[in-house]
Amino acid sequence: MDRERLKKLLTRLRRGDVTVASALESLKHWPVEELPFAALDHHRSLRQGCPEVIFCEGKEAGQVAEIAARIIAAGENVLATRATPEVYHAVREAFPAASYNKAGRVVTLLQKKPARTGGRVLLMTAGTSDIPVAEEAAETLRLLGSRVSRTYDTGVAGLHRLAQHQGRLSRARVIIVVAGMDGALASVVGGLVDKPLIAVPTSVGYGAGSGGITPLLTMLNSCAAGVGVVNIDNGFGAAVLADRINRLGEKKRR
Amino acid sequence: MDRERLKKLLTRLRRGDVTVASALESLKHWPVEELPFAALDHHRSLRQGCPEVIFCEGKEAGQVAEIAARIIAAGENVLATRATPEVYHAVREAFPAASYNKAGRVVTLLQKKPARTGGRVLLMTAGTSDIPVAEEAAETLRLLGSRVSRTYDTGVAGLHRLAQHQGRLSRARVIIVVAGMDGALASVVGGLVDKPLIAVPTSVGYGAGSGGITPLLTMLNSCAAGVGVVNIDNGFGAAVLADRINRLGEKKRR
Amino acid sequence: MDRERLKKLLTRLRRGDVTVASALESLKHWPVEELPFAALDHHRSLRQGCPEVIFCEGKEAGQVAEIAARIIAAGENVLATRATPEVYHAVREAFPAASYNKAGRVVTLLQKKPARTGGRVLLMTAGTSDIPVAEEAAETLRLLGSRVSRTYDTGVAGLHRLAQHQGRLSRARVIIVVAGMDGALASVVGGLVDKPLIAVPTSVGYGAGSGGITPLLTMLNSCAAGVGVVNIDNGFGAAVLADRINRLGEKKRR
Amino acid sequence: MDRERLKKLLTRLRRGDVTVASALESLKHWPVEELPFAALDHHRSLRQGCPEVIFCEGKEAGQVAEIAARIIAAGENVLATRATPEVYHAVREAFPAASYNKAGRVVTLLQKKPARTGGRVLLMTAGTSDIPVAEEAAETLRLLGSRVSRTYDTGVAGLHRLAQHQGRLSRARVIIVVAGMDGALASVVGGLVDKPLIAVPTSVGYGAGSGGITPLLTMLNSCAAGVGVVNIDNGFGAAVLADRINRLGEKKRR
Amino acid sequence: MDRERLKKLLTRLRRGDVTVASALESLKHWPVEELPFAALDHHRSLRQGCPEVIFCEGKEAGQVAEIAARIIAAGENVLATRATPEVYHAVREAFPAASYNKAGRVVTLLQKKPARTGGRVLLMTAGTSDIPVAEEAAETLRLLGSRVSRTYDTGVAGLHRLAQHQGRLSRARVIIVVAGMDGALASVVGGLVDKPLIAVPTSVGYGAGSGGITPLLTMLNSCAAGVGVVNIDNGFGAAVLADRINRLGEKKRR
Amino acid sequence: MDRERLKKLLTRLRRGDVTVASALESLKHWPVEELPFAALDHHRSLRQGCPEVIFCEGKEAGQVAEIAARIIAAGENVLATRATPEVYHAVREAFPAASYNKAGRVVTLLQKKPARTGGRVLLMTAGTSDIPVAEEAAETLRLLGSRVSRTYDTGVAGLHRLAQHQGRLSRARVIIVVAGMDGALASVVGGLVDKPLIAVPTSVGYGAGSGGITPLLTMLNSCAAGVGVVNIDNGFGAAVLADRINRLGEKKRR
Amino acid sequence: MDRERLKKLLTRLRRGDVTVASALESLKHWPVEELPFAALDHHRSLRQGCPEVIFCEGKEAGQVAEIAARIIAAGENVLATRATPEVYHAVREAFPAASYNKAGRVVTLLQKKPARTGGRVLLMTAGTSDIPVAEEAAETLRLLGSRVSRTYDTGVAGLHRLAQHQGRLSRARVIIVVAGMDGALASVVGGLVDKPLIAVPTSVGYGAGSGGITPLLTMLNSCAAGVGVVNIDNGFGAAVLADRINRLGEKKRR
Amino acid sequence: MDRERLKKLLTRLRRGDVTVASALESLKHWPVEELPFAALDHHRSLRQGCPEVIFCEGKEAGQVAEIAARIIAAGENVLATRATPEVYHAVREAFPAASYNKAGRVVTLLQKKPARTGGRVLLMTAGTSDIPVAEEAAETLRLLGSRVSRTYDTGVAGLHRLAQHQGRLSRARVIIVVAGMDGALASVVGGLVDKPLIAVPTSVGYGAGSGGITPLLTMLNSCAAGVGVVNIDNGFGAAVLADRINRLGEKKRR
Repeated sequence: MDRERLKKLLTRLRRGDVTVASALESLKHWPVEELPFAALDHHRSLRQGCPEVIFCEGKEAGQVAEIAARIIAAGENVLATRATPEVYHAVREAFPAASYNKAGRVVTLLQKKPARTGGRVLLMTAGTSDIPVAEEAAETLRLLGSRVSRTYDTGVAGLHRLAQHQGRLSRARVIIVVAGMDGALASVVGGLVDKPLIAVPTSVGYGAGSGGITPLLTMLNSCAAGVGVVNIDNGFGAAVLADRINRLGEKKRR
Repeated sequence: MDRERLKKLLTRLRRGDVTVASALESLKHWPVEELPFAALDHHRSLRQGCPEVIFCEGKEAGQVAEIAARIIAAGENVLATRATPEVYHAVREAFPAASYNKAGRVVTLLQKKPARTGGRVLLMTAGTSDIPVAEEAAETLRLLGSRVSRTYDTGVAGLHRLAQHQGRLSRARVIIVVAGMDGALASVVGGLVDKPLIAVPTSVGYGAGSGGITPLLTMLNSCAAGVGVVNIDNGFGAAVLADRINRLGEKKRR
Repeated sequence: MDRERLKKLLTRLRRGDVTVASALESLKHWPVEELPFAALDHHRSLRQGCPEVIFCEGKEAGQVAEIAARIIAAGENVLATRATPEVYHAVREAFPAASYNKAGRVVTLLQKKPARTGGRVLLMTAGTSDIPVAEEAAETLRLLGSRVSRTYDTGVAGLHRLAQHQGRLSRARVIIVVAGMDGALASVVGGLVDKPLIAVPTSVGYGAGSGGITPLLTMLNSCAAGVGVVNIDNGFGAAVLADRINRLGEKKRR
Repeated sequence: MDRERLKKLLTRLRRGDVTVASALESLKHWPVEELPFAALDHHRSLRQGCPEVIFCEGKEAGQVAEIAARIIAAGENVLATRATPEVYHAVREAFPAASYNKAGRVVTLLQKKPARTGGRVLLMTAGTSDIPVAEEAAETLRLLGSRVSRTYDTGVAGLHRLAQHQGRLSRARVIIVVAGMDGALASVVGGLVDKPLIAVPTSVGYGAGSGGITPLLTMLNSCAAGVGVVNIDNGFGAAVLADRINRLGEKKRR
Repeated sequence: MDRERLKKLLTRLRRGDVTVASALESLKHWPVEELPFAALDHHRSLRQGCPEVIFCEGKEAGQVAEIAARIIAAGENVLATRATPEVYHAVREAFPAASYNKAGRVVTLLQKKPARTGGRVLLMTAGTSDIPVAEEAAETLRLLGSRVSRTYDTGVAGLHRLAQHQGRLSRARVIIVVAGMDGALASVVGGLVDKPLIAVPTSVGYGAGSGGITPLLTMLNSCAAGVGVVNIDNGFGAAVLADRINRLGEKKRR
Repeated sequence: MDRERLKKLLTRLRRGDVTVASALESLKHWPVEELPFAALDHHRSLRQGCPEVIFCEGKEAGQVAEIAARIIAAGENVLATRATPEVYHAVREAFPAASYNKAGRVVTLLQKKPARTGGRVLLMTAGTSDIPVAEEAAETLRLLGSRVSRTYDTGVAGLHRLAQHQGRLSRARVIIVVAGMDGALASVVGGLVDKPLIAVPTSVGYGAGSGGITPLLTMLNSCAAGVGVVNIDNGFGAAVLADRINRLGEKKRR
Repeated sequence: MDRERLKKLLTRLRRGDVTVASALESLKHWPVEELPFAALDHHRSLRQGCPEVIFCEGKEAGQVAEIAARIIAAGENVLATRATPEVYHAVREAFPAASYNKAGRVVTLLQKKPARTGGRVLLMTAGTSDIPVAEEAAETLRLLGSRVSRTYDTGVAGLHRLAQHQGRLSRARVIIVVAGMDGALASVVGGLVDKPLIAVPTSVGYGAGSGGITPLLTMLNSCAAGVGVVNIDNGFGAAVLADRINRLGEKKRR
Repeated sequence: MDRERLKKLLTRLRRGDVTVASALESLKHWPVEELPFAALDHHRSLRQGCPEVIFCEGKEAGQVAEIAARIIAAGENVLATRATPEVYHAVREAFPAASYNKAGRVVTLLQKKPARTGGRVLLMTAGTSDIPVAEEAAETLRLLGSRVSRTYDTGVAGLHRLAQHQGRLSRARVIIVVAGMDGALASVVGGLVDKPLIAVPTSVGYGAGSGGITPLLTMLNSCAAGVGVVNIDNGFGAAVLADRINRLGEKKRR
């Protein structure tokens, strides 16, 4: 470990074996990656507070299992998104404790329990087809420790259904709106609350502006202010942001 | 006039000057444009029931005034859209009866009164910036004879305002929703009514998907069925369609 | 049921158990979703007059059958669009009365007869490849009760064919033009009639602007006014709008 | 006021002038907009905790001044974005207390002091050209009451400059990254912190993907999780979201 | 046949059974589709001089065979483009005389010999991957009767190869350039000749602007004037245009 | 001049001053640009048969006049497209013989008479706004020597007008269709004739797909085969191609 | 061979059988492709210093093997990109010396050793999913003779990892950055070095701007100057450019 | 200066005033920006070898002059791109030594002479309208010290002109091709040479794919390998890359 090399240099300086000028010179050429004290040299977990995530799309089941093994060996929790049943079986074979959220296509394995929040993240979807993305977010939030409420299939075309969830809206600390098609639910919810709202466009829909472009644009152009948007189908990203926001409120209870 | 030529042929046939075979042969080579009885040969006004419209964008004030003069000479009503004040002044100088809707940028001159409808077309806008497009539609509807109600600035971000207009929604026969930004109003209204709804995206908005692309896509992808969309900022087109629909209901009173 | 709670409050008020001021206060905090009298709280069927539709794309045959079962249990008619033969077989197994429009890929099951219209919706397609979308519209119209005429394969490249259908054009109350490729049929028909015209771009075509973008843009930019456009391949949406328009004319006979 | 009508109904019920059944019936038909106790019927300020904002683009100076006058009369704070110097002068003429942030093109007038937060929102820009958007956010945050730190011109091409601001990064509660060109700063900062990060693409740049499309896409595709994106140049929207997040942390001190 | 009805009318007129005025009136209401003499009522083959073409993409082999059978029954030549081997086998089973151009994916069956031209259409491709599109054009030209020269794989990156074909360039009457990737061959050839040049972009290529968009744009923006462009991969369309041009030169020998 | 150097080499060879081998060697290293006999070394006028054209957009009036002067000095005809009145005045000041087509924004000056064709190019426009592009083509054709017929404002929305021009259609050798908006005229005309048809999309129109994208796509996707497309507003390019095609037919009279 | 014809002409000239003028005239009409001394008539290998490459996408295994056989017969090295295992097996069957880089999907067969460079090309990837494109570049560089260093999975979200490679950055002569997702690595590296940097966007990523569009735009808009971009996933092209640059530095040692 | 603080710490350590452990601890918390020996802490000039450049677009003349003054005070050379004459005058007023390249819109002021290269960068443009971008590159290269050759207006439509420059092509070390319209020149030149080639698309052109998109795509899809592309109109970026490449060859003479 380079800490040792540095300690040796300082020790020799203290002993008078090297001059201050020469120590200065040595430090100057010291490659940054070997400085144990560099502010940048934190582990990602410390820096970002986010478990290692495996994005399975384009990876073979065996590869995912292998990466999972390394993460498990390091004592971390595993979160594998876009996981097919094949991926799940490959991971479970090696680690029977792995569990699978089929709707959200997420494989998880918890080794250490995350700090549970008091505040809730409310997950809303416009339609049933948006549920997979919402469940990806839900699993990610579970791993990160945020409590979750779900209000699925709350389409704009049935505003009265939205009204029924007024209570849940007011009890949540952060709201994630997951919507495809016209993406209008984000604007409608955004007009009703004064909470941080994360909008996730989904690739649900067809015809012009399909593949998620329409709800993405709708959400970016939302008449309601205070809406942060993540990429199409990016339930994971929305969850990480929601958890960070949720924990700000959480801290007050400490 | 070609009717004369045809009459002559038939007269000669009747007189026995030409044989049936030869008359048949003559008719065969008769160019279609000269057939007075061709079903296609209707005047546009008869065929489409729509006054001549002058699209002023890219035309000089003088040119518009000249076209207007010809329409007036033909005894038709004048409708000039996208008209600047300069255009209005040029037209008014020649025809003091011309009037100007400044918000909608429309110059009109009525020579013959259109048949007034009993049913109403409800014009809704999401924001104040959408009003010019709505007023273009309003003026067109006025010229065509459809009665109009207005409900402006009914944004989705303030759903309670929408609720206040439930009465007007139920009293209208056709609804035109004019919206820029996220265009979500069309979906929201479409989810509340079972009437023909025409959606007009406007170029109001900025950033990604601006210039009307966002509301256009939102409206095409609306979760609510029964929504017909016209081109961006095309208040005139929406009005023509709305008037045609409105008149279907109208006829029942005859 | 909350109606009971409200009744109780009113009863206590009548009895003098609570004051008017206190009743007012109670009502103020009454969550809107619990108000049995809220104008927004109508069933979708009442509000929109449209049977429940199942969009099958991306759903498994079993899922569709399950949803269909719930709709049937509720006494409603079933309309499943984008249905593969597999979906049909799954539904038919449970409900032998289900029928399948193979061209339009639509499964239907009528439990209650819709009110038949006198007026007709004319369905026109530019080519044979546009027929599936037109048939989706036809089945939807059948379920909604609108009478339908069909004029398929009336391409612009053969204008004489169009002329042959002049009669049908004049007998229809609403016209739906379904066209891919260059989408020009909508403009041509729109220039011949003064009726509400709904244009459906289809994803038929290839090369630049394929996937339906070309006919969508052509239809939005149509030189003929009075054309309402729905999304690419959205036969269902066009039918819902056409039926609503058709019924306006219908009412006159009552 | 409808409260009066309701009070009258309740009074008559109490007096026994109407039966409970008849009162229930009356309430059922009571239009929702007239119910003073409807949960939806909150003022926007209560619902969204956000001052009225005037988006000046496309409005004349006089119009802005007029809208400002109405807001002031209602006792609210004024925030006018995209304000030219002309707009400022028009507002200041009527309200000398108005102030102008020239860089951010924002006119403000505070009548009532917002609750100041303890936590800070850190505003970072990639280049000097991104400053106007950042200043729009800064002024909005000031009006909303959030404390602000600024770290401008921290481009990725000079990573060492970023490193110098490690301290500020760790002291902020929420970070707003404003960047045009390649938008890479959001990814870099997102990789260094575990805080809520709001990314604002700006229309700074030229050539392919200019007008803000490049940084928008970069931010949506950021390798770093936990990034919420707002529309191009939308400093106002980022600020509203940041303030809401910031206040979650704030509450813990109450 | 309607000719009969018309004949009857004329006969009755000649006999004096109807007046001229009444005959005129009858003709006026005669539906255009029933007029045997309407100039528009030519067969497509006469009007456009182009055999019936079957676009096989999206059609089943059986369907193609069926359509082919009808065309054959009508005594016309068959041209089926985008034909898979399966399609060929289905057609050949019924009509052993059918032949298949595997590279161009075209099935043909000649029943009547087209008029052969003296002039030649030169088919050039930039690379070997562009050959299928060129062969689709070659087969179409063969059916239409135009003589064809081929110069394949003449990429711009090897200009010297182009120079070798100077002779062929000068001997051709019309040139079709088929190119994917950067599409630059059209500009280079267009700069060397003063003949009609038809450019066909192909979907060969990958990365940004793939799917044929890059060569399409390059060809439309060609520095060389006198280049007409057809849609991506549209070898058939290029051939029809080339044959029409070729025949103009042909006529001089009559 | 290098011809001299070559002559000298050949003379020395003839004289026996150099051997054949050495002459061969010299020629081998002779740079291609210095070979007076290289087949590529033709003047553009010879190679392409097209007068020098000045594209005025982005050039100052003085610059255009200067370039025109050089072309005139070389004895060539001048064709300056996209010319403002200022450009015309600058050219006319130096060359009073210059003339200006205001509608087409083209300045011309003929020094030598082009060979006049017998055949005609028919120029059709869909609307009056397409006339400038058509006139640019008309002026180019005049300079190249092709005879021109004009049929302006023949929109698809008024098919009967098109029918009136059946005669002109059949008398033309090449047809240029100039259309903005929906560009459908190209498909309609293409379905009526068997002649080479060049389609020019114009930037006339607004809303989605404006700037000429809609008619460009419509024309590329035309249901009618035999249509060659040039770039948006490129009247000049269409004319060069039309003249080349026209001359093929012309030659037969020689 | 035409050299013979030329030799004969020169011999006859020397003998006095032809005059200088006549020889000049003969040479003038000599087609350029027949001139053995034309500067353009070099083999591609001489002109471009690049082995023949086979782009396997869309080619069958047998076709690739056949092309490879011809290249091998010509004594050249084989480089086949986008090669599936099937392609490899087909080539290896005929040429057992062929080797396969599975990650990079490249088949190679070296017959003659390329000149090895002293300088190194550093290949960096942002993530593990970018490795295939980097390996395509690596294999190409190996065949061309350039030495390669690899630094894979150096994402921006972990800047400290980048810092660890400072040494490698300073030892490389050319750097190739391969990145998908947000493409930010190119900007970050470009801000640290003063060396030629080639950026390769990859199609890794999902959602808006996927398929490589986002990193392509990011790289083109990079804040860091001195970055040259190649097409999405074009590892081969980046390698050819890198080798050419690398060899410039190489020459100094000669 | 922090070097002092570090020196003090080391001195105290040497003196025994602090222990090794405590020194280690101190260093750990030492903010990275204060470490004089951090590898990242180089000045941009050292790191990137590129003078400070001022991008003038969107900056006022006064602002540019102010920034220039600071750069001059630091002893650096000034390079201001996209400079209007007003900018030039503002700079020259303060620094009469400033010079202006009007065509390239670049203001320069050299205080210290750059090391001149022996090798040349060849600048080629397709047309005269591409010259401003080429001149921006030329001025940048002059400031960086690279020698420049120019070959302007070498369009593809006149290949013989290109052939004339074969000599210059072979004498250059790096080639920059600047082209708008179809961008084909890059492919043509790329097919003739085996040198590093940098392609700069320009926004010259009109119609579909204008604004530089067409040449950008053409260059990215170039059939010729070894082409690196920079953003549209980015002459500066091309020059920085070309200079870096040029200097690699340069070093060999040291």
